[in-house]
Order: sequence, then structure tokens, then C-alpha cells
Amino acid sequence: MKKIKVGLLGLGVVGAELADIINSNKENIKQKYEIEMEIGKAYVRDLQKKRNTDISPSCLTNSAEEVLNDSDIVCECMGGSGTEITKNYVIRCIESGKPVIMSSKKVIALYGKDILDLCLSQKSQIRFDATVGGGIPIAKVIKECFKGERITKAVGILNATSNYIYSSMERKGYTFGQALKKAQELGYAENDPTEDIDGFDALYKVIVLSLFAMKSWVNIKEMYTKSFSTIDLIDMKYAEELGYKIKPLAIFEKKDSKFIYRVGPCLIAENHIAANVTNNFNIIVFEGSNSGKLGFYGQGAGSKPTASAMYDDLISVLKTNFEYEMDLYKGCEVIHDYREFSNNLYWRVSVDNTIGKLALICNVFAKNSVNIEKVIQKDEVGGKMDVVLLTNSVESTVIDLITREFENNKVDVNTIIPFFND
Amino acid sequence: MKKIKVGLLGLGVVGAELADIINSNKENIKQKYEIEMEIGKAYVRDLQKKRNTDISPSCLTNSAEEVLNDSDIVCECMGGSGTEITKNYVIRCIESGKPVIMSSKKVIALYGKDILDLCLSQKSQIRFDATVGGGIPIAKVIKECFKGERITKAVGILNATSNYIYSSMERKGYTFGQALKKAQELGYAENDPTEDIDGFDALYKVIVLSLFAMKSWVNIKEMYTKSFSTIDLIDMKYAEELGYKIKPLAIFEKKDSKFIYRVGPCLIAENHIAANVTNNFNIIVFEGSNSGKLGFYGQGAGSKPTASAMYDDLISVLKTNFEYEMDLYKGCEVIHDYREFSNNLYWRVSVDNTIGKLALICNVFAKNSVNIEKVIQKDEVGGKMDVVLLTNSVESTVIDLITREFENNKVDVNTIIPFFND
Repeated sequence: MKKIKVGLLGLGVVGAELADIINSNKENIKQKYEIEMEIGKAYVRDLQKKRNTDISPSCLTNSAEEVLNDSDIVCECMGGSGTEITKNYVIRCIESGKPVIMSSKKVIALYGKDILDLCLSQKSQIRFDATVGGGIPIAKVIKECFKGERITKAVGILNATSNYIYSSMERKGYTFGQALKKAQELGYAENDPTEDIDGFDALYKVIVLSLFAMKSWVNIKEMYTKSFSTIDLIDMKYAEELGYKIKPLAIFEKKDSKFIYRVGPCLIAENHIAANVTNNFNIIVFEGSNSGKLGFYGQGAGSKPTASAMYDDLISVLKTNFEYEMDLYKGCEVIHDYREFSNNLYWRVSVDNTIGKLALICNVFAKNSVNIEKVIQKDEVGGKMDVVLLTNSVESTVIDLITREFENNKVDVNTIIPFFND
Repeated sequence: MKKIKVGLLGLGVVGAELADIINSNKENIKQKYEIEMEIGKAYVRDLQKKRNTDISPSCLTNSAEEVLNDSDIVCECMGGSGTEITKNYVIRCIESGKPVIMSSKKVIALYGKDILDLCLSQKSQIRFDATVGGGIPIAKVIKECFKGERITKAVGILNATSNYIYSSMERKGYTFGQALKKAQELGYAENDPTEDIDGFDALYKVIVLSLFAMKSWVNIKEMYTKSFSTIDLIDMKYAEELGYKIKPLAIFEKKDSKFIYRVGPCLIAENHIAANVTNNFNIIVFEGSNSGKLGFYGQGAGSKPTASAMYDDLISVLKTNFEYEMDLYKGCEVIHDYREFSNNLYWRVSVDNTIGKLALICNVFAKNSVNIEKVIQKDEVGGKMDVVLLTNSVESTVIDLITREFENNKVDVNTIIPFFND
């Protein structure tokens, strides 16, 4: 019987779960593929640390090179161990012709093009379905299904941490800061939550998804991002009064051969499927040319789901007999033609409760040719009152003009949030 | 270059769409698989009828046998052309060793076991991913992903017609009858809507899904069904007051090696993802052993999505080189051990507005050891008043007892609806 050794780069929570899944499916693999699959070496930084999986100490090493030399397939489960280091290990694997299965989305998002170009020239196999969607088999779905479909648009909630925070704001009336603190206590947010709440994690995932769905490479620097932390609880309440929810959305779209990429808070109609995805759940809704809207929902993060997705990748390597299968990435296009995300806007401004203030606000919009679709003037609190306005879409230069004019006239602009118009 | 002829059984809306997809992807197929794929013969009943696709009249035949003899792969797009006839054609194809791609879920649901047994013994290939989910690639997802997962539970909205009807009741305040009529006018419901609104269509889909997800064959006669038409608009309103929605659900679950299958109206928490699936959309939410809840959302019916799913099946036949690939169906278990679906219940009864009536109702429940979790007594209308009660789960024999006792005491039992408890 053929023997296959799986090497692990990293044995943190994901690596340990993956080891468990591999061990508990040994018999299956024997029966199905006539292959004896076993864990070879595992690269760890601390040889003494207790591991959450049943692995012999002799398998542990702190030489990544040793893992590489010993294995037939390498699984990268490096977590947050530095993207440069991870990238270099992965490149070493590719150069030596070993199939690699990756879990670090940031590495793919930042260095993916170089990595894939290398794979294409080396005819080496790489799989990274686990980098996006966690347990939601979104990459597999795009690759295995949709043969006759073109995907032109997608909206998703891709960051579990910010969705968890927004959900607990909505349900428990926490401020963003309070909700973040709770999320940290419960382990849903990191001690340094920047990557999650400032939208980077979602951006990385959008880059990978866009690669799978539209064969397009995006440069992270050219994508529009707004931190998820820029909304207040009161905005959620006002949005709800208007029939909307505020959600931490990621959007990409191809329109007239230009592209829109956006990550940030967005208003979305309360009856949209994504508006009702709460807690640590993710969703991604594609627009397919034949099938219309297609949504995929589940826990987008977590060590078990990620390990499960990596295991699927492992099986795919077996099923393809380790052979080069990279057609998907041939001819991927690097996007330069971005289009501004323009959509209806939600504005919350506040003013002194004096005569003529509403007229002033309305005049500023009118002067800049912006149509107001809805206004709610709220009760005065402490001499100030909130005015909430929904307007049609406005270009960013015009937003700046209006904001400046408001500031000159003592109208505080508290929040501007775009709508996701389906 | 290798030539492949695809024969079509049926050239209605699905067949015509499939022909279009095949024709428009010819170049793709040539490049990717070095195969020239073309439509061979198409079986139609009326040779004169105008077709929605560009097909030469010489390809049309009203002999199914001719299609079979002429083709390398047969696609069954018979629609509602009689399950017996369709079954027989499919069996002829299998006997002659030709791969078959099916779209008729009813045929699989009723005769699937015999058909698959024949395929297993003949080592012939059959694919029927398009029979469930329409454009939602649910069968592919289960077969291609989830390698390390066990699916133990699923809840779904599988019938687009009834979901459309429920949605327009909810939004527009129609009665079930009015909403059905509207749906028929708009083409969302058939002239004879029985299969959809009495739950058969959903049952067929549950049978196919259960086969994919749990390798279990269910007998349609042993599944619990209640017609979707058994609810009133007022129940939707009351459910909403209680924080629930009423949805046309299909549920299956494996619990302690017994099985629960149920199709019918159900109360579901308003923040559950399935509660917010409206109009003609479907969803299916699985419980996976590693990944937790996984939901798949989209248009579960329609000719384009179905044809697109059949096309995916066609590509799978090419990719597997026409080879027998039926391991999925080996050792499928025929289920005999059903378990009663027991869950919390919603009761709407109505009584004359006289002293002691509520006491009477409560006493009947207490006598039968049923715990009341919530009661709302509504205003009197025309001498009668509605009482809505939420109780714990009650076995069907006890429901009958209580119902009889209510009837003897002039308490009208209007509706009993189970909850879906997540």
C-alpha cells in the first residue's frame, strides 16, 4: 500500500485539529484510496509546549526544512506567525515540488500572485481553500460547481469578529467599545483587534474570493476600506427605524469591465438574507449569470472548520494524484480599473436646535445637486438634535465639499454610511 | 478530437436552456477537455411545436429509443411527463450502459433505490444533482466537500411555491387562497398546485437530500407531512407577536440512530437564517460535525438554474471519463426506524367569551401533563375570542386526546403548528 506523509508547518489550534482529523480518518483513506496517510514531522517553535493532539514527541521539530524533506505533502498552519516567514516556507515547498495546502489568507492576499506564478512555472500544486470561508466550502463550490456560470457580483459578511460585535451592539445595546471588550473576553476578538475591526481580514478574504470567483488579482492598497469601528449604536437604531440594518459588509462587483471593491459598515435592507446573519456567522451571496443569487452561510472561522477545509484540500491532492492542476489560475487578470463605490447614503448630522437649521442642511444638499430621499429629525437632547438623512449616491469629492460646508455652518457630521443596494 | 453526442429526453424549458448552455460552451469544452460536444437527438412529443432553442428540426424525434441509440450521454429533462414513462426510459439508458443525467426528482424519490441498484449492478453512471436545489449546488457541495464531516441534521425551505405564498401572505396580508391565486397568475404556482402546497415536492427533495447527506433511503409513505395550506394569515400575525415566523419547512435529523422526517408549516425563531428567506428562494441549513451550521441559499427551481446544474453534471461525466463512480450510493441504508417529530407546539383555539373558558383550556392541558409556556388571549371578535398557547412537546396521541376534549367542551381547535427548535 502506498504511503503518504503529511508534514505540518505549525501545530497550533488549526494544526492540532487537522492532525486529529487525519488520524481519525486513516481507515477511510485506506479503504477509499488504498493509501496509508500519516503525519510525518510537525514544525513548532516550542518543542516542550503541550499539544492538543496525540502526536509523538519525535515528530516535533523546530526546523521547517526537516518537515519539508520528510513529507510528501505540506500543510501550512502557521496562523499569525509572520507573513514573511510563512511566505518563504511556502516558496521553499513549491521550489522543491511538494504540494502545499495553506491556511494563511494574509500570505495569499499579499503575495499570492508571486506564489501562484511560481506554481504555474514549476507545475507544482497549491491549495488554499481553507483561507476563506472556514467551514463554508466556498472555494470548492466556486471551483467545482458553477461550470456554466459567470459571477459578476458578491456581497458578504466575511469577518466574524466584527459581525459578533455588531450583533451584540444590536441585541444588548452595547457601544462598539463595550461590545469589543466583551468579544475579547469571550475569545471572539484578539487582544490586538486591528486586523479584524479595521477591515483587513475581510479585505484579504475578498482578494482570495475575487481570485476564485472572477480570476482577478486585486491590490489591497487600491481597495476601499472603512473601519467597522466607525459606527455608533445610535446609527443602528436609526437604521432600524428606516427598515435597514448596519452590517460589516464586503462587496465586490464587475460592472462595465470596471471593478468595485469595498469593505466597511453598510446599510442593508432588513429583509436581505445577509441582514439576518448574526454573531460569529458569515455569509457570502453571489450573483450568478444563470442561477441568480446564491448564498453560502456558516462559521467562517474557527480551528475545526478551517482544519476540516484543509482536510478537504488534502483529499483533493490525493484524488488528483498529486498532479499539477492549476488551470484555474492561468490568465488571471490584475485589476487596475477601479470604479468608485457609489450608492445611496445615510447621513447623521447634529445641530443646535435653532430656527433655520433644517433649511440650511437641505440647502447644502440642494446646492450640490444631491437629492434627499428621507429625513428624520430627532428630539433635542442637551441642546443638540440629530438629523438623519437618506440621499442618493454622491461621489467622494462631493461628499468632501458637503462635509466642509456643514462644518463651516456648525453642522456636525457624525456618520456617513453607504447603502448596499441589491 | 473526440466527439461526444448528448441526447435530450424532453425539450421543454429545461431542455431548451440546457441545449443553449451546451451550445454556448462548445469552445470552452474543446479547449479544456479536447472534446467536441454537441446535441445529438432530442425526444419531443410534438415535432411541430416551436422550440425556445436553436436546434435543427432533423434532431427532433418522437422516439426515445432513437435518442438513446444516437447518444453517448442522455439528459433526462422530461418535466411532468409522467413518472412511469420517465423511469422506464431511464432504465433503458442504464441497461444500455449510457451515462444518464436526470432532472426529475419525483422519479428518483419514488424509484431511486431500484434505479441506483441497477446502476450499481451494471456499473453504469447516473447523476441527478439537478433534482434538488435547482441552482443551489447542494448535491455537489455534499459530494465534493465535507470529506471529514458527518451531517446529522438539516432544516430547509425546499419548496419555492409555498414560500412565495407564505411571503406574500406576510407582506400583503393575503389569505392562503388569495396568495395562491396570485402565485398562479404570476407563474409561481401550477394550475394544479397539489404537489407543491401539499408538501410532496418538498418530500421528494428531502428523500434525495437524505440520500446524499446521510446515505439513507426513506419511504415517502413513512414521512410525516402536513399540507402547507393548513395555516391562516392570523397565525402568521400571532407568531410574529411571539417573535417567530411561520415557514414551509422540511426537516430531517438522525438522533440516537432513529430518524425524524417532517415536511409542513413550522414556527421558527425570527432571527434564524431560514426565517428570513422569502419569495421564491430556498435555503438548506445542515448541521456538520466539524463546521456546525452550514447554509445554502438560492433559487431552488426555475429552468435556467436546473439546466445549469445539469450542465455541471455533464462536465462531471466528462471529467470522470464516463467511468462508473457510484461509491457514494454503495451501502445506502433503508430507514425503518422513524421517531416522532416532537417539539414545542403553537395552538390557536377559539371560544365564546364567557367566564371560565381560559380555566377550562388550561385544565385540559394540565390534566394531560402538558406545560403551557405562554398564553395570549386576544380581543373578542363577533362573540368569539382567540387564545394562543405555546406548550412543550406533546405526542400525537396526546394531541388527539386534547383535541377531542376541547371539541367536547366547545373549544374550537383552529391550528396546531410545531416549532422548529434549533
